[in-house]
Amino acid sequence: MSHAVPTGRTGVTAAGGFRAAGITAGLKASGKPDVALVVNDGPRFDAAGVFTSNRVFAAPVRWTRQLVSTGPGVDGVPGGAIRAVVLNSGGANACTGPEGFDDTVATAEHVGSVLGVPATEVAVCSTGLIGERLPMDLLLSGIGAAHGALADEGGLDAATAIMTTDTVAKTAQVSAHGFTVGGMAKGAGMLAPGLATMLVVVTTDAVSDPATLDAALRQATRVTFDRLDSDGAMSTNDTVLLLASGASGVTPPVEDLTTAVTAVCADLAAQLLADAEGATKEIAIEVVHAVTEDDAVAVGRSVARNNLVKTAFFGQDPNWGRILAAVGTVPETVVFDADLIDVSINGVQICRAGGVGEDRSLVDLTGRKAHVLIDLHAGTETATVTTNDLSHAYVHENSAYST
Amino acid sequence: MSHAVPTGRTGVTAAGGFRAAGITAGLKASGKPDVALVVNDGPRFDAAGVFTSNRVFAAPVRWTRQLVSTGPGVDGVPGGAIRAVVLNSGGANACTGPEGFDDTVATAEHVGSVLGVPATEVAVCSTGLIGERLPMDLLLSGIGAAHGALADEGGLDAATAIMTTDTVAKTAQVSAHGFTVGGMAKGAGMLAPGLATMLVVVTTDAVSDPATLDAALRQATRVTFDRLDSDGAMSTNDTVLLLASGASGVTPPVEDLTTAVTAVCADLAAQLLADAEGATKEIAIEVVHAVTEDDAVAVGRSVARNNLVKTAFFGQDPNWGRILAAVGTVPETVVFDADLIDVSINGVQICRAGGVGEDRSLVDLTGRKAHVLIDLHAGTETATVTTNDLSHAYVHENSAYST
Repeated sequence: MSHAVPTGRTGVTAAGGFRAAGITAGLKASGKPDVALVVNDGPRFDAAGVFTSNRVFAAPVRWTRQLVSTGPGVDGVPGGAIRAVVLNSGGANACTGPEGFDDTVATAEHVGSVLGVPATEVAVCSTGLIGERLPMDLLLSGIGAAHGALADEGGLDAATAIMTTDTVAKTAQVSAHGFTVGGMAKGAGMLAPGLATMLVVVTTDAVSDPATLDAALRQATRVTFDRLDSDGAMSTNDTVLLLASGASGVTPPVEDLTTAVTAVCADLAAQLLADAEGATKEIAIEVVHAVTEDDAVAVGRSVARNNLVKTAFFGQDPNWGRILAAVGTVPETVVFDADLIDVSINGVQICRAGGVGEDRSLVDLTGRKAHVLIDLHAGTETATVTTNDLSHAYVHENSAYST
Repeated sequence: MSHAVPTGRTGVTAAGGFRAAGITAGLKASGKPDVALVVNDGPRFDAAGVFTSNRVFAAPVRWTRQLVSTGPGVDGVPGGAIRAVVLNSGGANACTGPEGFDDTVATAEHVGSVLGVPATEVAVCSTGLIGERLPMDLLLSGIGAAHGALADEGGLDAATAIMTTDTVAKTAQVSAHGFTVGGMAKGAGMLAPGLATMLVVVTTDAVSDPATLDAALRQATRVTFDRLDSDGAMSTNDTVLLLASGASGVTPPVEDLTTAVTAVCADLAAQLLADAEGATKEIAIEVVHAVTEDDAVAVGRSVARNNLVKTAFFGQDPNWGRILAAVGTVPETVVFDADLIDVSINGVQICRAGGVGEDRSLVDLTGRKAHVLIDLHAGTETATVTTNDLSHAYVHENSAYST
């Protein structure tokens, strides 16, 4: 994978057939860029998406989920075709009632109008504070500006315009077997299972169809974004889109497409973890010898979400007792015997057979990256869940967010 | 309820038939009291207990759970009889393997020996750091000292000796209908559903039997300790015991006993919440118009555990969007329509029908107590879950705990 310096055709414009832009519409008080536009110039417009499983979801999620519903489509319009994605930071448009949904529809209609495409093929994503209407005059004029700024090399600008508390723009791309996959992401903190508070757009110039894209994207997110668990809170706006232009003329085997999409998602997920709000540690929790992969994920997630574990890592304290206590809270269906579990932190097996192992003072937790290995001694399956520590800066950032 | 100044016959010695002591055995580096002994002088020794549901549980939990198993009993010994409880702070004796369990048995045997009662009627509770063996020489000699200090007015000393990060000793008592119920608790932070990291001993001079005590205690804990949710982490050592001496000669109706035990547990739970590690807010989350009480508890708990909600309260930010997003993460089985939910904070309905309500600037969050009212508009059931905010001090205390 080329994790390139992000200039030129990068991120969502790395693949042929895509243009993008990111501009300042004035939605953010800071005056930073806040509207991004990604346009698929074809020749194909196949698309798929995965969305938050939160039962409280934002108006743009309601809209965009309809666009990519494969199968019979919605209101007679075949699902799975997206010609453009408009994204704004500076407001989530969540919990804004019917008026908020009207705003989303008006946004899609305006993009459709300036591009000359059906509004029903324009995806909308929003991120920011919940419970406030978007300033539609600013947003609609911003869309005009973004349209004027569309460029083959606009990937970095688009990635920059969707940042909220992110400190860096996040892009990735990979080329192989004659096609390219690229993408952008925003999200820092609030990463959660079943997706993060996160907007991701992945593009490819491969030739594909909505069902294949859907399968590839679900497999990719399952082992990447779904296994980030920064603070266990799931957003109202989480959206991951995959768009295919077919511009390369190459129709890859589904395995190759899945591999490339997964590589881009993994790269973006690692960037999200590295930029999580106020974190001082990136913690990989590897669970081995579980009976099922789901068991391994459940154990990893329980540890990843435990505030006592997370504060211990902030304190550079290899407190394996808290890890074991967190393992003990998983559902009864997860198979393990507490008296068999081994736990290593950064290579030191400080817990052996559920009891005291090597001296905890041997563990060096001064670095940013930490590795926890939990051996359940129950089966053959493995999974890794990643998270951050719980720091003073996390509390600071999240206690001051809307004020 | 008399929430008395804790002198004289208070806490576990408020009820007739009980003596207690709290002394310094040297388990804590601080030199503070660390061993408590509670003795039931009868004439009856009926008992019940509820314990952590964590699948990783400490040696003393394994031991004491056997003692109060009602029904056929364990190893031919009828369950539900406890003549003494020995409790230590300064070490949890969790994740200490077979040797740790041997230590618990030796502790019970030593108490049995000095009191002249069967070891199988001596409950053991421990609290402190996980994963380290107890210094048995200090503990056993401490038991001798505690035995010598047993007193009718020892309730406060016992409550003091079980403190860990608690800043105050916690006792409560109530007398009515000719019998008394009293109790003590330790626990600060780490409060969690299905019990907190918490040791509680409740005593009564009522005449009862193990099955009745078990029913009364389960009902009491279900609506008190089980609805504290300070940081969502469940301990390896949580134990709540109820002992009845029968010294009053009064056999109350089960309803009266349940009411009194619930009152004492509610008082102790409120003290735990008030003393939670590093908290600046006590937050009551009242969920109304749910289809079932379980639904209401699930919604309340989801909000109570959400770090983004908790940091917002620390920042005195009435961020109702985070509350709604937390509600949205409950299981599919919980019935609600997101477009109907109202949310009030301290009496101001800042969210109405899932959207913007009154101006958030009207909400005053400067006080220590906060009240969140979530109206699901789905049914007739109600529950209240209480929690704390997530503060800098929480991170500080919990990142430095074992070092």
